[in-house]
Amino acid sequence: MLLTSLANVRYLTGFTGSNAVMLVLPGEAIFFTDPRYAIQSGREVTCRRRVAKGPILAAVAAMAAAQRLRRVGFEPAHLSYEAYDKLRSNMPLNTSLEPVSGWLEALRMLKSETEIALIRRSVAANSKAFERAARRIRPGMRESELAAEIDHQMRRLGAEKPSFETIVAAGERSALPHARPTGAVLKPRQLLLIDMGAFLDGYASDMTRMLFLGVPGPQVKRLYRAVREAQLAAIDAVRPGVTAAQVDRRARQVLKTYKLERTFVHSTGHGLGLEIHELPRIGKKDQTPLAAGMAITIEPGVYLEGVGGIRIEDTVVVTSTGCEVLTPTSKELRLL
Amino acid sequence: MLLTSLANVRYLTGFTGSNAVMLVLPGEAIFFTDPRYAIQSGREVTCRRRVAKGPILAAVAAMAAAQRLRRVGFEPAHLSYEAYDKLRSNMPLNTSLEPVSGWLEALRMLKSETEIALIRRSVAANSKAFERAARRIRPGMRESELAAEIDHQMRRLGAEKPSFETIVAAGERSALPHARPTGAVLKPRQLLLIDMGAFLDGYASDMTRMLFLGVPGPQVKRLYRAVREAQLAAIDAVRPGVTAAQVDRRARQVLKTYKLERTFVHSTGHGLGLEIHELPRIGKKDQTPLAAGMAITIEPGVYLEGVGGIRIEDTVVVTSTGCEVLTPTSKELRLL
Repeated sequence: MLLTSLANVRYLTGFTGSNAVMLVLPGEAIFFTDPRYAIQSGREVTCRRRVAKGPILAAVAAMAAAQRLRRVGFEPAHLSYEAYDKLRSNMPLNTSLEPVSGWLEALRMLKSETEIALIRRSVAANSKAFERAARRIRPGMRESELAAEIDHQMRRLGAEKPSFETIVAAGERSALPHARPTGAVLKPRQLLLIDMGAFLDGYASDMTRMLFLGVPGPQVKRLYRAVREAQLAAIDAVRPGVTAAQVDRRARQVLKTYKLERTFVHSTGHGLGLEIHELPRIGKKDQTPLAAGMAITIEPGVYLEGVGGIRIEDTVVVTSTGCEVLTPTSKELRLL
Repeated sequence: MLLTSLANVRYLTGFTGSNAVMLVLPGEAIFFTDPRYAIQSGREVTCRRRVAKGPILAAVAAMAAAQRLRRVGFEPAHLSYEAYDKLRSNMPLNTSLEPVSGWLEALRMLKSETEIALIRRSVAANSKAFERAARRIRPGMRESELAAEIDHQMRRLGAEKPSFETIVAAGERSALPHARPTGAVLKPRQLLLIDMGAFLDGYASDMTRMLFLGVPGPQVKRLYRAVREAQLAAIDAVRPGVTAAQVDRRARQVLKTYKLERTFVHSTGHGLGLEIHELPRIGKKDQTPLAAGMAITIEPGVYLEGVGGIRIEDTVVVTSTGCEVLTPTSKELRLL
């Protein structure tokens, strides 16, 4: 099996560089990188190692030929058509290349104690960065300035980078689930949605919190109550054996009692770890039974064009009896 | 022709979102995105537009069927094997899918006036961020702290993000051409290499400067003189009609007079624009003749294990008579 997903290679070896692949054979694994990472990979990787001077996939093909491999699996989502084509033409003619999806991704769903500790640290730094940035919010600040401040606080707390492009969306723009921060200025009597996560020592965190500049009216209060109730109900449903779809359904049921289910236009959450989006997907169609050690987000939301959007998101870990919410940040609508 | 490179789609349409493809037909172009970008793409894109509710490539395949396309080109470097496979299975059986590489990339080498203005702004912001961060450098600061400070200053100056992971490498670590910032502390009598670039309104900048904490000895001075001389000679060689390889050779010739040519382990530069690495590659094998409107970096370097590395890099634009160095930052070794 040839692994070309860098997250999968890191998962198996601990390698933190930007270019490597692995060939996993019965009883042996061989790690390939380029000369830029000769020293670093020597420190990080304990399995057999090759530093390829030329193209890395040519070195893999040469190894496959030397080992007389008949069948080589590859990751179709993590290999471009071009790279596949080059690999194919470098491989011996009688070696078959076969797409194999999701092998490592299924293993990676269940986090080890060490991984959970890393996610916990990432979540803690992310929440701390939120607190520090939230204290600096003032009317007149631009969305983009606040996003920059958040990212800076994360970095100061040890994060490598945000785990996705930080979302800061004020007023009606909060109704766009994937809003990019703009030059728009924060104004009084506005909703403010902040969706942020960090990569710390390679592991992701993810949190969404809502703020309000001023005193919210009854409509915003009602929407907020609905989302909080949906989020708490979904968290309450998380335990081993319950499927991802059941957790998703729980959030939708609550929103239905508020007649808001149609405004919830995405899934309830997703796994996270070395990548910000991992399995399982906490959505309508994912029948994966949850199991102790899974790290997932729970993030229902409602989005009303012309009004705004509200989403509340925590990172939680499935335990043997239910789940633990890692995110320490208060879930109240924060008034500024 | 199906375009799946987001940079190529942005180049043709101005779309700044994270998910879109284009089908370019004789006399017509059709832009595809998902519902998250329905509003935004309506503002940014002027050609025919489809917002696909399901998988975007399924919508492309349906369009290809409706238009009875016989041959569809695709970008093999920008389509995963998995996506290719899905596209293939969704396409009519009598439609042939053919890999076509580098069509847009060749067009994108020559920047318009508007693009050069955008690169100029990105370069200016990047240099300003360097000045602001450089003033805060003190012995005892960590590489990672300085990198965070640099990134923060860029963002405050309007950049979306760094155009690559900012490199801050102190002392012997500067000899690693792709060093990631670590927790290592800046010490007196050390070389400090900073390689940084911004994306501003989508366009990249790229600059490397060297600093020294204290007063450098004769060895560092000599190395610095050699690299500066090589960099100036390469810049001097840049003009329309000269090949990328000739510019690269010029830098190597100078380093040879210092017996340092073997320590120059990468190419002299690269094109940049909507991506940080574009064509041409200013390297030994690239026979592309330079032409007015190309934006490239010139960045020779020398790397001595156990001593350190020195690189000086500017962003320059090829003009009708030679080139213009956009980077305004002084090229002297900066003493701190």
